Amino acid sequence: MTNQNKEIPYKIFLNENEMPKQWYNVRADMKTKPAPLLNPNTLKPMTAKELSVVFCDELVAQELNNDTAYLDIPHEILNFYKMYRPSPLVRAYCLEKKLDTPAKIYYKFEGNNTSGSHKLNSAIAQAYYAKNQGLKGVTTETGAGQWGTALSMACAYLGLDCKVFMVKCSYEQKPFRREVMRTYGASVTPSPSNLTKIGQKILSDHPDTTGSLGCAISEAVEVAVGSEGYRYVLGSVLNQVLLHQSIIGLETKAALDKYNIQPDMIIGCAGGGSNLGGLISPFMGEKLRGEKDYRFIAVEPASCPSLTRGKFVYDFCDTGMVTPLAKMYTLGSNFIPSANHAGGLRYHGMNSVLSQLYHDGYMEAKSVEQTSVFEAAEMFAKVEGILPAPESSHAIRVAIDEALKCKENGEEKTIVFGLTGTGYFDMFAYERYNNGEMTDYIPTEADLAVGFAGIPKFYGNEI
Amino acid sequence: MTNQNKEIPYKIFLNENEMPKQWYNVRADMKTKPAPLLNPNTLKPMTAKELSVVFCDELVAQELNNDTAYLDIPHEILNFYKMYRPSPLVRAYCLEKKLDTPAKIYYKFEGNNTSGSHKLNSAIAQAYYAKNQGLKGVTTETGAGQWGTALSMACAYLGLDCKVFMVKCSYEQKPFRREVMRTYGASVTPSPSNLTKIGQKILSDHPDTTGSLGCAISEAVEVAVGSEGYRYVLGSVLNQVLLHQSIIGLETKAALDKYNIQPDMIIGCAGGGSNLGGLISPFMGEKLRGEKDYRFIAVEPASCPSLTRGKFVYDFCDTGMVTPLAKMYTLGSNFIPSANHAGGLRYHGMNSVLSQLYHDGYMEAKSVEQTSVFEAAEMFAKVEGILPAPESSHAIRVAIDEALKCKENGEEKTIVFGLTGTGYFDMFAYERYNNGEMTDYIPTEADLAVGFAGIPKFYGNEI
Repeated sequence: MTNQNKEIPYKIFLNENEMPKQWYNVRADMKTKPAPLLNPNTLKPMTAKELSVVFCDELVAQELNNDTAYLDIPHEILNFYKMYRPSPLVRAYCLEKKLDTPAKIYYKFEGNNTSGSHKLNSAIAQAYYAKNQGLKGVTTETGAGQWGTALSMACAYLGLDCKVFMVKCSYEQKPFRREVMRTYGASVTPSPSNLTKIGQKILSDHPDTTGSLGCAISEAVEVAVGSEGYRYVLGSVLNQVLLHQSIIGLETKAALDKYNIQPDMIIGCAGGGSNLGGLISPFMGEKLRGEKDYRFIAVEPASCPSLTRGKFVYDFCDTGMVTPLAKMYTLGSNFIPSANHAGGLRYHGMNSVLSQLYHDGYMEAKSVEQTSVFEAAEMFAKVEGILPAPESSHAIRVAIDEALKCKENGEEKTIVFGLTGTGYFDMFAYERYNNGEMTDYIPTEADLAVGFAGIPKFYGNEI
Repeated sequence: MTNQNKEIPYKIFLNENEMPKQWYNVRADMKTKPAPLLNPNTLKPMTAKELSVVFCDELVAQELNNDTAYLDIPHEILNFYKMYRPSPLVRAYCLEKKLDTPAKIYYKFEGNNTSGSHKLNSAIAQAYYAKNQGLKGVTTETGAGQWGTALSMACAYLGLDCKVFMVKCSYEQKPFRREVMRTYGASVTPSPSNLTKIGQKILSDHPDTTGSLGCAISEAVEVAVGSEGYRYVLGSVLNQVLLHQSIIGLETKAALDKYNIQPDMIIGCAGGGSNLGGLISPFMGEKLRGEKDYRFIAVEPASCPSLTRGKFVYDFCDTGMVTPLAKMYTLGSNFIPSANHAGGLRYHGMNSVLSQLYHDGYMEAKSVEQTSVFEAAEMFAKVEGILPAPESSHAIRVAIDEALKCKENGEEKTIVFGLTGTGYFDMFAYERYNNGEMTDYIPTEADLAVGFAGIPKFYGNEI
């Protein structure tokens, strides 16, 4: 399928003037649009006015915009992108050789910035619109700390205050992430805290709790809503985040086009969907418009299998049930993934755009087990020289499996996958793997039933 | 002095086919060659035969080669370089704006690889020559872990065994670095260990010792010499390392030439000299040949000031006094820098080539205090988006100081500095800084006298 008429370098870099100047909104090309967010009290679509209490105005407009295909990237964001982008599209020559496969493998590497992942692409956008609206600052939650780091960097650059609620056990177990955020001037508060009513209540009921993402979200939203000049921002799941992350896919496509490379399949790891959605967007647009065909593969952990084993229904976006309802593949907002699962991708649901596309058959999904993911990570690190994040390694696992199928079948396919980040702050997980102590976990049907039971019940939302 | 006739992008990347194919050996252009290594027993120059007991043959040849200006980089090393090089030469637009300076600031960023620093440039070369000689593996020591990580990566790529002796306190306090090395398949042994005679002796004399670099070197050398098919490798100080690291300067020069940029000064941090020597080599060559003039500034910590306060004499390269004698600026091989000093650059001496050039007036040196270094690091991180290694931040400090002088004097100078690496594994030091707990230390004359007293005394080596 590929017609490569130039010698492909190890790394394809775009020039600065070849960088995309617009984001691409895949919703514009979807025949069946993603279902709207619902107000959980009225069950009616959330209005811009309702959303703007929590989110910045321009971001609300982007969230609700299902029609405009291309949106200009503001000049100041473009300048920030130039500090760490374009990111390289790497030809995995060494991995191909190691696998002895006729497949051609490429990966888009988003880890070459201090946040260590693609999260910075949306952090700078959200911080910019907050600044532009004349706000003083933003609040957010962070679990593992990738998103919090990215947001801290963006806020430091723009001179915006940044309040991060970090799940208490992460705050204590990931001091490095915490200190990166503090170096960038963010205030980092272990959650639950005494700064909020919800935090006080939880601490009084459960003084020994180590916190949860749901609680941290609730605290961040409470502070944003209650503080003059603050709004809440979020690093994944929302449609606006997919829009900002389309920069990944647009650069990938420009780099492939430069060398006349036509991929057969595009593979990305999926937690809330920010990376996968961004990576595949422009390619999915071509498929939706009937111009080209590609296989898209979402890879999720077997321990948190929202696409492969979840329900396509309306559900809360957070465990605290304070957010609007989103229609998505979900395991139920109170589904708790096993504690033994390393890294991110622990989210119970999946972005609405990706959920709709999967439901409509435009995308495949696979789930993979943790030990096999780290085996792929180790092989990749040794031959390609990059220690990958556990999240990214889910995509590596499936890319390797597909390349081995090509070897078996003698097919010279072109595989592109997203390498979202580096694993430098995930060495405790690697240590478990190095010591042979890593285990796998697949939820039973009974485990899933507990999560499903929490999905809100109303007419038309039958699970 | 600069004639810039094209718009300069944020990052100047060379194309793969513009990457240097040869290393540059600055010794070839030195009128006064660096003094030879001496055998401490005979006080005669070390022969290739003597050196080859410890080091690989080809590396011994490079160590002794004062005449050949350009050496071909083997094809396999070039291919490895293509995985993470060329590294970007970044125009620090945001830092310039923050400082409001007419100076133009560039930095060569060597941190975008999993070892987190420039050390990989020499690690792959040394591992390649070991492999090429048919050896089974190599041994080395590591303190902070940067060099050990780089060597582990290179050995994993080539299928070479790698035995790292890691100073025991680092082994325990830097588990992340240790686990990166283990993921790359290296065996990492806390030093002192029971694997060697010297380790057994030290453990028996001092059962509670937390180890030292000197002891780790002695163990690594003992294992290399005593094991069939093994040699010892070293990440800095040696002339061969400067040769390999010339790739930094050659790429920097090619990128500057591409845009017709003529630097006025080139600044690099200096511990053993591997980064500084590599960065300045081709520019120093022009100065030595009388073709151009540049200011070169070596930046060292005030707590370990080998160039600014050391003696230019013959001294041992290690605290254990098992190595040959090198003529260099030294504080004495038993000088112990304050424990409060963060990061690397703790070496008591300085590479012989750089020492000779400094002695002959071709280069300046400055020492800076730790707190001001971290202040520079914080500012840099916030405006340029890269969290720098403490070592690299020494160069940032002086680059900022020089840019502010330009502002004061209204001079539009062009400053280039080396950003050797990232600080992701140095967050304990940043934490101390964030908490306001960082302190400065400048050795007294009495402190220095203790180190000087350990310098070997023989005719012609008067301190």
